[in-house]
Amino acid sequence: MSGLENVLVVGTGLIGASVALALRGQGVTVHLADRDPAAVRLASELGAGVEWAGESVDMAVIAVPPQAVAGQLAELQRAGAARFYTDVASVKALPLRQAAEIGCDLATYVAGHPLAGRERSGPAAARADLFLGRPWALCPTAETSPDAVEALRLLIKLCGGEAVQVGAVEHDRAVAVVSHAPHVTASAVAARLAEAPAAALGLAGQGVRDVTRIAAGDPNLWTGILSGNALPVADVLEAVAADLAAAAASLRASAGPDAESAPGAADAPADPEAMGRVTELLRRGVAGTGRIPGKHGGPARAYATVQVIIGDRPGELARLFQVARDAGVNIEDVRLEHAPGLPLGAADLLVQPEAVPALSEALRAHGWHLP
Amino acid sequence: MSGLENVLVVGTGLIGASVALALRGQGVTVHLADRDPAAVRLASELGAGVEWAGESVDMAVIAVPPQAVAGQLAELQRAGAARFYTDVASVKALPLRQAAEIGCDLATYVAGHPLAGRERSGPAAARADLFLGRPWALCPTAETSPDAVEALRLLIKLCGGEAVQVGAVEHDRAVAVVSHAPHVTASAVAARLAEAPAAALGLAGQGVRDVTRIAAGDPNLWTGILSGNALPVADVLEAVAADLAAAAASLRASAGPDAESAPGAADAPADPEAMGRVTELLRRGVAGTGRIPGKHGGPARAYATVQVIIGDRPGELARLFQVARDAGVNIEDVRLEHAPGLPLGAADLLVQPEAVPALSEALRAHGWHLP
Repeated sequence: MSGLENVLVVGTGLIGASVALALRGQGVTVHLADRDPAAVRLASELGAGVEWAGESVDMAVIAVPPQAVAGQLAELQRAGAARFYTDVASVKALPLRQAAEIGCDLATYVAGHPLAGRERSGPAAARADLFLGRPWALCPTAETSPDAVEALRLLIKLCGGEAVQVGAVEHDRAVAVVSHAPHVTASAVAARLAEAPAAALGLAGQGVRDVTRIAAGDPNLWTGILSGNALPVADVLEAVAADLAAAAASLRASAGPDAESAPGAADAPADPEAMGRVTELLRRGVAGTGRIPGKHGGPARAYATVQVIIGDRPGELARLFQVARDAGVNIEDVRLEHAPGLPLGAADLLVQPEAVPALSEALRAHGWHLP
Repeated sequence: MSGLENVLVVGTGLIGASVALALRGQGVTVHLADRDPAAVRLASELGAGVEWAGESVDMAVIAVPPQAVAGQLAELQRAGAARFYTDVASVKALPLRQAAEIGCDLATYVAGHPLAGRERSGPAAARADLFLGRPWALCPTAETSPDAVEALRLLIKLCGGEAVQVGAVEHDRAVAVVSHAPHVTASAVAARLAEAPAAALGLAGQGVRDVTRIAAGDPNLWTGILSGNALPVADVLEAVAADLAAAAASLRASAGPDAESAPGAADAPADPEAMGRVTELLRRGVAGTGRIPGKHGGPARAYATVQVIIGDRPGELARLFQVARDAGVNIEDVRLEHAPGLPLGAADLLVQPEAVPALSEALRAHGWHLP
């Protein structure tokens, strides 16, 4: 195939409208369709494209919930809407299986999944850069035509994503581990906060904020995703639940069988090996965090941290970054540790290890306080 | 009591040495003791104080593992080392119970716990500002003298912390919910990453990074903390495990009893109410995240987010913060979303909602790309 001159986006929510905006930015003609006419109008007014009037296009992007992908694909194929078809659902085995069951043409359809999202939803939250540098899974099968795969690879490239080819079953198992089960687990930790005394929340630090951040996501959206990947997610959740139940049992064993009725018994562990099993879980956790790839898709890399105390006034961070720039140092990441109740906080500046002396010296020379 | 002129810090690890540095910065004379003479020398060279030669002080701060606090307290009291005593262990019921059991003077001892820590440990990681604006729990009992409480409150103030008075049992239950159990749960999620195929890690996004960050902490340090708070942590972990096991069961029920042997059965949920139970857990999670206090210790407040696309070159953030400063806008927090494989990323700037128009306009006027 020679290119993508025109694309149809069906479903103008966050992901669909973002695909449309990204393609428009690359000069592609984009047609929009949605069962909600207001959503099409809004996406169109945002510059995402024009309402579809049945024109035949190079590729149709089906951006609807996982359970609705196959039906939509069949309908579009019956109408001869496009040469090639893809979707963007968070699960891949379900739509592929349903498409086969209802007799879709599997040669022209490549299942896809951009690994991008936001805590907001709808076309108004769409952004042309949503996929920039993010993984975008594509899951061709033995029946998929090479031209269809090529078309999806071009679309991913136009959107700025990084194509990752993977089998549908393997994809679903992977996202269960790195996305779906962590979401449910964060919800279960956050659920404890919902029922805790108010005083307990006053002792919350940065750790629990990080663990529970994604639990703020839309429950209905996530119910649809989890429902479409039910068995792989259940597998992971059962493993997490088993580890936590075992840790709880080890903690009780370490306190001794009568610890609750006779508190003093907790001083001498009844089962001296019980805490060793907890330590082993903590060690496996350390090993797991070390496997998460670092910035720019490469292997995890250890940046060095320079800490600096900053005031809570406009411009403090600007001056800090200005000093870093003047010293020729690129700040790879920054984390602000707020100081509740006081107009001061600590900033952790992540930099290449070799840049630490230059940055530290420059910051001190400009009056910054490095602990 | 009139003040704290001299303080003894026993145990010059991260927390002890940080207390010493903070007090020294306020003009307090600090004496240092540690069973490891090298740790005392290092802390002393870092400016944390002078080696203790048996002088009597106003207050002794016991900064040793939870299991060792009571024995250390008894030894110091026998020597008449101080007028008042406190500790900094992460659990509070255990040292109080042990102190009573071995006959310590409970009038001069106030159990304490600064809610501050780092992923590094040892005196070299100490910082005078570690406690700035952080909660610092104090747990007086009916036997504690008002003067001892007053002395600890003064010490907390000198260190820049925010005193939070709470019962020891209540404290231990609170940190089980907001710190200890979240840590173990993050480890259990990260343990799945340790055993996942490498390809799965390639699909990891920001969510799983946040959920598992604290799981990188020192397993031995955390084993000691969890061991000292075994039963409250076990209670929370059992509740989390039960929620996750129930979610897994609901997911399996939603897929139908024969889903695994006959995949097509997954299309029509066998138990239409099963996913509703998962949604309910997600909703409880949303409610829990909403209870975490926001910046500056006040109730959680919704900052508005301005997103901007940035390049991966020295000075990009400096210019951005400079523009914000010139526009009179205070950036409350910043989160960088990296773009793996590309020299671009998105920065989320959190600001007061009323500052959004001014910041957006200023950034656009200076050529920044706002999605």
